[in-house]
Amino acid sequence: MLDAEQPPTSDQIRLYDQVAGQVARLIEQGTLRPGDRIPSVRRMSGQMEVSLSTVTHAYRLLESRGLIEARPKSGYFVRDTAIRVPPPPKATRSNIRPLRVNVSQLSRRLHDVLASPEVIKLGAVVPDVELLPMQRINRLLMQTLQRFPEMGHRYDIPMGHAPLRHEIARRMIDAGAEVAPDELVTTTGASEAVYLALHAALRPGDTVAVESPSYFGILEKLETTGIRVIEVACDPETGVDVDAIERLAEQGKIQGAVVVANFNNPLGCRMPDDAKRRVVDVMSRYQLPLIEDDIFGELHFDAGVRPKALKAFDQEGFVLYCSSFSKTISPGLRVGWCAPGIYQDAFVQAKIAINPAGSIAMQAAAAKYLQTAGFDLHLRRLRRILHERTRKVASAVYEHFPEETRASAPQGGQVLWVELPRGFDSEQLFEEAAQRNISVAPGILFSPGDRFRNCVRLNCAIQSNERVEQAIIELGRLAKNQLTT
Amino acid sequence: MLDAEQPPTSDQIRLYDQVAGQVARLIEQGTLRPGDRIPSVRRMSGQMEVSLSTVTHAYRLLESRGLIEARPKSGYFVRDTAIRVPPPPKATRSNIRPLRVNVSQLSRRLHDVLASPEVIKLGAVVPDVELLPMQRINRLLMQTLQRFPEMGHRYDIPMGHAPLRHEIARRMIDAGAEVAPDELVTTTGASEAVYLALHAALRPGDTVAVESPSYFGILEKLETTGIRVIEVACDPETGVDVDAIERLAEQGKIQGAVVVANFNNPLGCRMPDDAKRRVVDVMSRYQLPLIEDDIFGELHFDAGVRPKALKAFDQEGFVLYCSSFSKTISPGLRVGWCAPGIYQDAFVQAKIAINPAGSIAMQAAAAKYLQTAGFDLHLRRLRRILHERTRKVASAVYEHFPEETRASAPQGGQVLWVELPRGFDSEQLFEEAAQRNISVAPGILFSPGDRFRNCVRLNCAIQSNERVEQAIIELGRLAKNQLTT
Repeated sequence: MLDAEQPPTSDQIRLYDQVAGQVARLIEQGTLRPGDRIPSVRRMSGQMEVSLSTVTHAYRLLESRGLIEARPKSGYFVRDTAIRVPPPPKATRSNIRPLRVNVSQLSRRLHDVLASPEVIKLGAVVPDVELLPMQRINRLLMQTLQRFPEMGHRYDIPMGHAPLRHEIARRMIDAGAEVAPDELVTTTGASEAVYLALHAALRPGDTVAVESPSYFGILEKLETTGIRVIEVACDPETGVDVDAIERLAEQGKIQGAVVVANFNNPLGCRMPDDAKRRVVDVMSRYQLPLIEDDIFGELHFDAGVRPKALKAFDQEGFVLYCSSFSKTISPGLRVGWCAPGIYQDAFVQAKIAINPAGSIAMQAAAAKYLQTAGFDLHLRRLRRILHERTRKVASAVYEHFPEETRASAPQGGQVLWVELPRGFDSEQLFEEAAQRNISVAPGILFSPGDRFRNCVRLNCAIQSNERVEQAIIELGRLAKNQLTT
Repeated sequence: MLDAEQPPTSDQIRLYDQVAGQVARLIEQGTLRPGDRIPSVRRMSGQMEVSLSTVTHAYRLLESRGLIEARPKSGYFVRDTAIRVPPPPKATRSNIRPLRVNVSQLSRRLHDVLASPEVIKLGAVVPDVELLPMQRINRLLMQTLQRFPEMGHRYDIPMGHAPLRHEIARRMIDAGAEVAPDELVTTTGASEAVYLALHAALRPGDTVAVESPSYFGILEKLETTGIRVIEVACDPETGVDVDAIERLAEQGKIQGAVVVANFNNPLGCRMPDDAKRRVVDVMSRYQLPLIEDDIFGELHFDAGVRPKALKAFDQEGFVLYCSSFSKTISPGLRVGWCAPGIYQDAFVQAKIAINPAGSIAMQAAAAKYLQTAGFDLHLRRLRRILHERTRKVASAVYEHFPEETRASAPQGGQVLWVELPRGFDSEQLFEEAAQRNISVAPGILFSPGDRFRNCVRLNCAIQSNERVEQAIIELGRLAKNQLTT
């Protein structure tokens, strides 16, 4: 796309992103304001010690994102419409002792709030239905029912619908992972895939390393399986600290790890390829399972290729790769999958014991959809909209939340992580907002150690309309009230 | 149906069944042969110490099943087409020590054999698709997609689709259970419901009482959750020995029980109502969870009303009632449910952690179908056909299996339990049959204690055609070979 002759390598893309990220941060922080001229290609090339062509590519990337514009013979300028967003959150730290997880009560409370049809779903990670290829999927499902009226009424085999596994295997090439259809097992959503992966590869009483912060859906699974966790430091841009994981593995303190390398939920950060390779190498060296949740992998905001999965670096099969179509095609499909590596037998055994059969009709419709070019077109549109909305929510947070509020600059996914000043209680905000029919995910859900009480996660994939804007204004007002009383 | 003025009470129905069962056994054992006159209504009334009207009802029942016929002024005679079946299996015994379950390897092997499209599925419990209301469900699903194109693409709430829960609650009145829609949680099939029930009410290391023999799908769940089992004696007609369960509860040897009261899989027996009431009372008295799998509850072979669930006697909420539509509407729907009683919070918590959302589209289609009268009409046809096929398989077993072979006389469900002479190895038969593209469920799967190596379970719900008949002849041949070498 950037280069018509030859696709850029992943190293090149990383460089483009670095340069573009640097300029975007200067704009976000207000150092560069609308109308300002940005450093020339030559100057930036010298400053960042990269080639002229790299800077040119990076600037074109920023242009395509609507942040800067080229003016003939004058260079690049920050666009008037370039928006201001809060500065990024601070890096988190690792802890040492394993902790028991205890988030399920509050998670249940969040689910209860989200169950009301009136509530504004800033607390969920739900793509708005209008962003999904609903009509297309409905048509494919109806065609399947008409052409093969019996197919959807049989029990599926434990491995899952073979034509779908074939399509998924093809798709995973884009993630750099070479997985045969017979090395894949379909599941009822990524949620079940991650549960089965934990069940297959770990035991109650084991300890795993997780990112800090970590998605509470994963923490809940660890709670219910009686697995303890050690939280590992995360950089809001490059993700989890691989050195820390290595030390834990070396010291025998962990029996596995769960990592969301592409767009940590809630931080939205992405691990660089070399960090991905290293974490896989570490886990393989110590023969420990590495559970990867790649549900946001297709939802990268840059215009480059899809980021690699951890599975791409998995030579020995210690990665249990989990994903689903819930964030890209439809949450209602209930189709996910796992590439469990060397844990495949145990994974299939667990699936047979717990929930042996998925819906063949839904899997068949998903397989048909993956065969069309429509999916890639749809993904391109979806990525662009999610990126826009995420920035829009960030801008609204900048405008309406208390001063000193920080927010993630997600590189993909669909959530924004908002860090308020110390002393702020997100659980109180959660309850106050719930009374006003607004849901947010309180930060304490994302850690077993009560680390993020001053944070909230906001869903950016809901339709941006006045009601949502008003909701963010109201959240800002409640937050300010809380901090001044 | 038997009495136009007033529906019979469940006590009356039990009496009818007793009398009819007595005559049916005489026919099955060959004491009464085709053409024989059966005892007059008056004589039978005296022999069994029941009213004349009861015997009349029972004989009409046998007539409707095609076993006997009335000849004007001469009384009732065994029909020429009345088939001969093997004598019933012996009652099983209880064991004392808890056992760890270890059936999942062989179960996996059975699943692998069943995965081949060519194999004759005598080893599964799969209703043949031609027995299911496929076209009707497909139409309802398509209507749902057309009228509410967005509905099926949302995340479901953890409790499940409300209109379906309403319909299920109405349906459960027939099972004698008064359960409000808010006391129901839908699941992805009964399999998931039973797993979540175990997860919610018990812990690894606990011991539960199960029927002997017990469905291996349940045993696998106990294996995977690390729960040990004590097998409890079963009568092939009246089911599990409640006295034995009471002793175990009294002695603190069990922390719960799993019972399939309506048509134990594989025995096909049904617990009498007073036994059902007693087992619920026992478990309630000792405050222990009683997990009920009622997946075959609607598939009773007599013409009376649907048998009561254990849940019907559950005053205090210790019963976790599980069921699904996989055996009555379609396995492909993947719609089951649980009424978890006092364990509801823990059940919902487990569902959220493991697999929070089901398919709304499938649940909506099921709800629509339950609103129609079609379901009851369909069930009536299904019961009749399953009863016929079960007897047909039993007759074929009588004809082709080794002498001394016994077989269950199921009162409902869709399987036949075949007991061969001691020394017979069903695992060997399983492997030999698999090579011939025939699947059977070997008896050792139904016990953690290697009790039923001489038994096999046969699925009777598959289309009865020459291929199936040939398969049973072949199984008989293999069994005879094994016993003579």
